[in-house]
Amino acid sequence: MLSDELQMAVRFNEADPLGIVWHGHYVRYFEDGRESFGMKYNFSYLDFYRNGLAVPIVSLQCDYKKPLKYGDVMRIVTTFEPCAAAKIIFRYQIFENETSELVASGSSTQVFVDIRNFSLHLISPDFFEQWKTKWEVR
Amino acid sequence: MLSDELQMAVRFNEADPLGIVWHGHYVRYFEDGRESFGMKYNFSYLDFYRNGLAVPIVSLQCDYKKPLKYGDVMRIVTTFEPCAAAKIIFRYQIFENETSELVASGSSTQVFVDIRNFSLHLISPDFFEQWKTKWEVR
Amino acid sequence: MLSDELQMAVRFNEADPLGIVWHGHYVRYFEDGRESFGMKYNFSYLDFYRNGLAVPIVSLQCDYKKPLKYGDVMRIVTTFEPCAAAKIIFRYQIFENETSELVASGSSTQVFVDIRNFSLHLISPDFFEQWKTKWEVR
Amino acid sequence: MLSDELQMAVRFNEADPLGIVWHGHYVRYFEDGRESFGMKYNFSYLDFYRNGLAVPIVSLQCDYKKPLKYGDVMRIVTTFEPCAAAKIIFRYQIFENETSELVASGSSTQVFVDIRNFSLHLISPDFFEQWKTKWEVR
Repeated sequence: MLSDELQMAVRFNEADPLGIVWHGHYVRYFEDGRESFGMKYNFSYLDFYRNGLAVPIVSLQCDYKKPLKYGDVMRIVTTFEPCAAAKIIFRYQIFENETSELVASGSSTQVFVDIRNFSLHLISPDFFEQWKTKWEVR
Repeated sequence: MLSDELQMAVRFNEADPLGIVWHGHYVRYFEDGRESFGMKYNFSYLDFYRNGLAVPIVSLQCDYKKPLKYGDVMRIVTTFEPCAAAKIIFRYQIFENETSELVASGSSTQVFVDIRNFSLHLISPDFFEQWKTKWEVR
Repeated sequence: MLSDELQMAVRFNEADPLGIVWHGHYVRYFEDGRESFGMKYNFSYLDFYRNGLAVPIVSLQCDYKKPLKYGDVMRIVTTFEPCAAAKIIFRYQIFENETSELVASGSSTQVFVDIRNFSLHLISPDFFEQWKTKWEVR
Repeated sequence: MLSDELQMAVRFNEADPLGIVWHGHYVRYFEDGRESFGMKYNFSYLDFYRNGLAVPIVSLQCDYKKPLKYGDVMRIVTTFEPCAAAKIIFRYQIFENETSELVASGSSTQVFVDIRNFSLHLISPDFFEQWKTKWEVR
């Protein structure tokens, strides 16, 4: 299981009139987790671009367990989920850092498309297969 | 079936370096759809506040079918899904306005909590039951 | 004086823990005003693109007079400020719609750059000069 | 001169269809700089709240010199500007980290208001004066 942990403080502008983080910001938190994962394992948007590919999100899901408040620090755990198809699946867990309580969990699915015309790649690209072999996530 | 339709243009700042709307913005589009629904059927956040309640999102899901670009106009169809439990469920469909192609679909679930301490209400509040009766969505 | 008026409701996710609109969102309100102006006077980002130009903001300024709250409706007045140089200057005034109180005022300056390499155009492009002549804003 | 330096990578969702960071995001970068300054010098929103005060932005200004792209790392330098009046003034400079080129510069002015009714405090609060004395920024 490949995973990454990222600590991040809640920003003032992310909390809503109830004093809690607006639910839409968790999509950015997931993206921050994914980016941090990519830095750790050489698996970034820019690597895909260099191969003529974009990897748009085709499905996203989030369950909210507890609110985060301004002043809280969160810990985002991003885990790569092995998958035989030409897809990239990540799972996310966000914890309140001090108490280690689960705040939210979710997942995303990405596909490979040609960066010029957005046509779908049904077969997983070679360099991604090599990456999976290297990190033993098949 | 209670539903609302909202037309809205893609904003320049919502498109990413690929020229397409960043996936996270759809959460705001859903909220815009929900607000427009609330205006039409007297069912707004502020009505809940007056009753001492907040209605946080506890689950959100979105499937992305086709990209939206800057310059596109979308049509957000927000539908109230009847539910016996103390929950509010909405379904969303976003269409590219000109072609009527489905761009994204999703759903959200909200619960009732006390606005002071965020304690969960397990029983649906009276005024919400009355609203459902009035609009015949039970 | 060419100007445009746009009415818009404050979104829930735009208000911060103090219950007032976070100051950063006014930059988007200004952009919404600019877009609305562009729709009215055929003066949009996309028109510039077709001419191989981008018009990035090089300067932005905002004074905040009164807070906006969730539930408020604002009126954004966007005014084109004639200018001999190769620049586009807009002035913005945001009013609370019901009371007509001034909520914020500001301005932005844009320049013309080549869309391929971001090199600055020191001379105002022909189609923009024609636009100014047509609307008598020289 | 009290100042803070914060390094931060440009997020994918912050770049627009031109591939450059949308100008509105710099307001958040400034806020991130201010928060980082506050962590370093014990000068945070939450400290003000505990004293019954909010410190809303009343004026903001930004000059954009060069674009930031996705993949760039920025360095935000936030400097406290001494001021006799009951105001908080910060200056910001954002540099592209590798080349040290100035990307943007700006400033913000905040005032003290009562957190309950937003009435303006014309006299600087004691604890802020003590903070200025401690850090010798009068």
